[in-house]
Amino acid sequence: MENGRVKKWGIRGNKELKRASGVTMSSVLNALMSNLNASDKRGLIPMGHGDPSSFPSFRTTLDAENAIVRALQSADFNCYSSTVGILLARRAIAEYLSQDLPYKLSPEDIYLTLGGTHAIEIILTALNNPGANILLPKPGYPDYEAWAAFGHLDVGHFDLLPEKNWELDHESIEALADENTVAVVIINPGNPCGNVYSYELLEKVAKMGRKLGIFVIADEVYDHLVFGEKPFVPMGVCGSMVPVITIGSISKRWIVPGWRLGWIATNDPNGVLQKSGIVECIIGCLNVSSSPVTFIQAALPQILSETKDFFFSKIKSLLRQAANISYDRIKEIPCFDCPQKPEGSMLIMVKLNWSLLEDIDNDLDFCLKLAKEEFVIVLPGIVVGMSNWLRITFAIEPSSLEDGLGRIKEFCQRHCKK
Amino acid sequence: MENGRVKKWGIRGNKELKRASGVTMSSVLNALMSNLNASDKRGLIPMGHGDPSSFPSFRTTLDAENAIVRALQSADFNCYSSTVGILLARRAIAEYLSQDLPYKLSPEDIYLTLGGTHAIEIILTALNNPGANILLPKPGYPDYEAWAAFGHLDVGHFDLLPEKNWELDHESIEALADENTVAVVIINPGNPCGNVYSYELLEKVAKMGRKLGIFVIADEVYDHLVFGEKPFVPMGVCGSMVPVITIGSISKRWIVPGWRLGWIATNDPNGVLQKSGIVECIIGCLNVSSSPVTFIQAALPQILSETKDFFFSKIKSLLRQAANISYDRIKEIPCFDCPQKPEGSMLIMVKLNWSLLEDIDNDLDFCLKLAKEEFVIVLPGIVVGMSNWLRITFAIEPSSLEDGLGRIKEFCQRHCKK
Ligand SMILES: Cc1ncc(COP(=O)(O)O)c(C=O)c1O
Ligand SMILES: Cc1ncc(COP(=O)(O)O)c(C=O)c1O
Repeated sequence: MENGRVKKWGIRGNKELKRASGVTMSSVLNALMSNLNASDKRGLIPMGHGDPSSFPSFRTTLDAENAIVRALQSADFNCYSSTVGILLARRAIAEYLSQDLPYKLSPEDIYLTLGGTHAIEIILTALNNPGANILLPKPGYPDYEAWAAFGHLDVGHFDLLPEKNWELDHESIEALADENTVAVVIINPGNPCGNVYSYELLEKVAKMGRKLGIFVIADEVYDHLVFGEKPFVPMGVCGSMVPVITIGSISKRWIVPGWRLGWIATNDPNGVLQKSGIVECIIGCLNVSSSPVTFIQAALPQILSETKDFFFSKIKSLLRQAANISYDRIKEIPCFDCPQKPEGSMLIMVKLNWSLLEDIDNDLDFCLKLAKEEFVIVLPGIVVGMSNWLRITFAIEPSSLEDGLGRIKEFCQRHCKK
Repeated sequence: MENGRVKKWGIRGNKELKRASGVTMSSVLNALMSNLNASDKRGLIPMGHGDPSSFPSFRTTLDAENAIVRALQSADFNCYSSTVGILLARRAIAEYLSQDLPYKLSPEDIYLTLGGTHAIEIILTALNNPGANILLPKPGYPDYEAWAAFGHLDVGHFDLLPEKNWELDHESIEALADENTVAVVIINPGNPCGNVYSYELLEKVAKMGRKLGIFVIADEVYDHLVFGEKPFVPMGVCGSMVPVITIGSISKRWIVPGWRLGWIATNDPNGVLQKSGIVECIIGCLNVSSSPVTFIQAALPQILSETKDFFFSKIKSLLRQAANISYDRIKEIPCFDCPQKPEGSMLIMVKLNWSLLEDIDNDLDFCLKLAKEEFVIVLPGIVVGMSNWLRITFAIEPSSLEDGLGRIKEFCQRHCKK
């Protein structure tokens, strides 16, 4: 060592990353969690993110658990997976999705991912190209913002309309699109709004996409979790009008977000995505990425075929009741305004009425103080792109729901202008 | 729709990605697999990649399987994981690694990842900064090249020396480093060379790192898989001389690459990595990434504590025998030159002697023809950065090993100059 002198460490971290990952849900949830009052004896009520898996009423079906145990104990699936997913799992998803489509998907249309999170990462990375942009809903899901920022993909935002069932207005999307727009993202059933889109609406989106030459990324991780009037219609039904890349997951319908299994499906009977090279980019991206656990992939055919309808209807009826209770209780809270009762997913958006609130600075401040004073976590709207709003998860144990909503009401009454 | 006219689809894929993912192992293995002669009745002998999990002799221990089943059936771990990993798993890894270190790691030093693959992705993304470079061994592991290329991180290559037990020469690394060098990567036990590094060598690397102000990325996914004279010494033992980021995994030692569980460990008693902001970048990157399956993380304490020594010694003795047989057989093949018997990992490097071979263009051509004529897969050296070499995996079912090596010998005899 030259005179024993030590050069000063020149290590520097990735700056883009700091910027991009600043907007994620986890960082805000962490901040809220660390603002809790540990001496509060009432028990935490976590209405912050869509994961009811630890509540007894929402326990997943034993059929799914048993399928995993069998696949594991066969010892046939301790091996690396092919980077696009193992064939039997791709085939099972193709058949599962084809049930709701006017054409058949093939296993080659399916790419297994580590949940919807990973699917978003892969698709946005595959699209990342100098100058390209994508259009995102507002409010929306923060991972899209993070991956776009991280990869220098430009974004435009179109409003979802609270007074119109959180529908989107395809004319405002058209106004936003330009020569460099490649895709529009639709989240249905909706996080954070609980909206469910009709076939008519999806068809309008498809026609618009076709006219503009942009394809649709349909985030359907909440697929089938609908409990209002409208059925769940996958965007893929319009695949022959516009190329559709669907994002799916077992996280929500089976209430197993920790199992990390999702997929990308290309709904593209005309082969536009294939020709454009985007499929090749998706495969390239998967080639350098980790795959979902092989034995969980291997259990997928049984998970899909052996889960009883009873399980699905039980979950839907739990969610329906919880949505009703939440909507009714929230209506009674003076400084809240709730334009729509959710028809799907696990979430409800609530607007704060500032003319009635005092000593609260903004939605984040509301959530921080609520965490501290009432041991209740809800998500500030700023995380989903809507300041002055709150996103509340109603998918919690039913016995805690009234308690949580009651605490929120008391909090509001305390902070209401006298 | 304006006159019903359809704009032509403007979708374009990510070009960087195509370039970056071109060098991966999976793409070459796919090419070899599609060159197989399906009518060959002898059975495929896969000596291409380090995954013996599907061979009966290499089946993982039931203790590990049972730990997973228990964690799954508890239903306590169907939930999302914290993005850095769940505390009990981080603590278990901290204790596991501390056994071999002169200081104690804390759970905060450990970040759970989806195998070593994901750890490489996270670290190289965290380091990605305009102009920065890292130094990689040649031959090496292609994922480093892919993630560096993808993120615009420059790379320099230093040779591993075949005639010197595949050691590295720290002076040539010094000559390569410049003001913008942030880290050097050491793979030990070695993929693809089967090398095992002594404490003395690691100490030289540490002193060099300290002098140059660059830290060490120690890829130890093959940790403890050593079967020669030298024990496995983790680079972390030099953590107080130089900051070390260790990459680990249960994929190799437990023979479960499909379980997708690995980690990043910061061995950094002086807190250099923390101060430099790199830890924050790692956390930021994990915040937007999928986490390992929660119930597999939850099984980790039991997997680590309940696996019997018997299992580890059985695997090591299988590998030792396989390395011996391979080395001996390879020595008998005229057009092969094998400088070193492996002392660790599952791999051996073999040099092709062109003066003795005919009608073979290069190492890739060798492997393609071998696949077609003998139903045997081995990896062309070009994938690991060494054209004219082959990388052969000897971790296969013992009864197939002699067969595979025999077929390779026949192939060489057939293609030897007459
Ligand atoms: C709209 C949306 N997309 C994607 C995801 C990620 O899903 P996964 O848990 O399968 O990673 C979520 C999770 O909440 C989501 O709400
Ligand atoms: C040197 C090296 N690093 C990382 C990995 C990836 O490990 P994992 O299977 O845990 O993703 C491998 C796998 O072969 C490897 O050889």
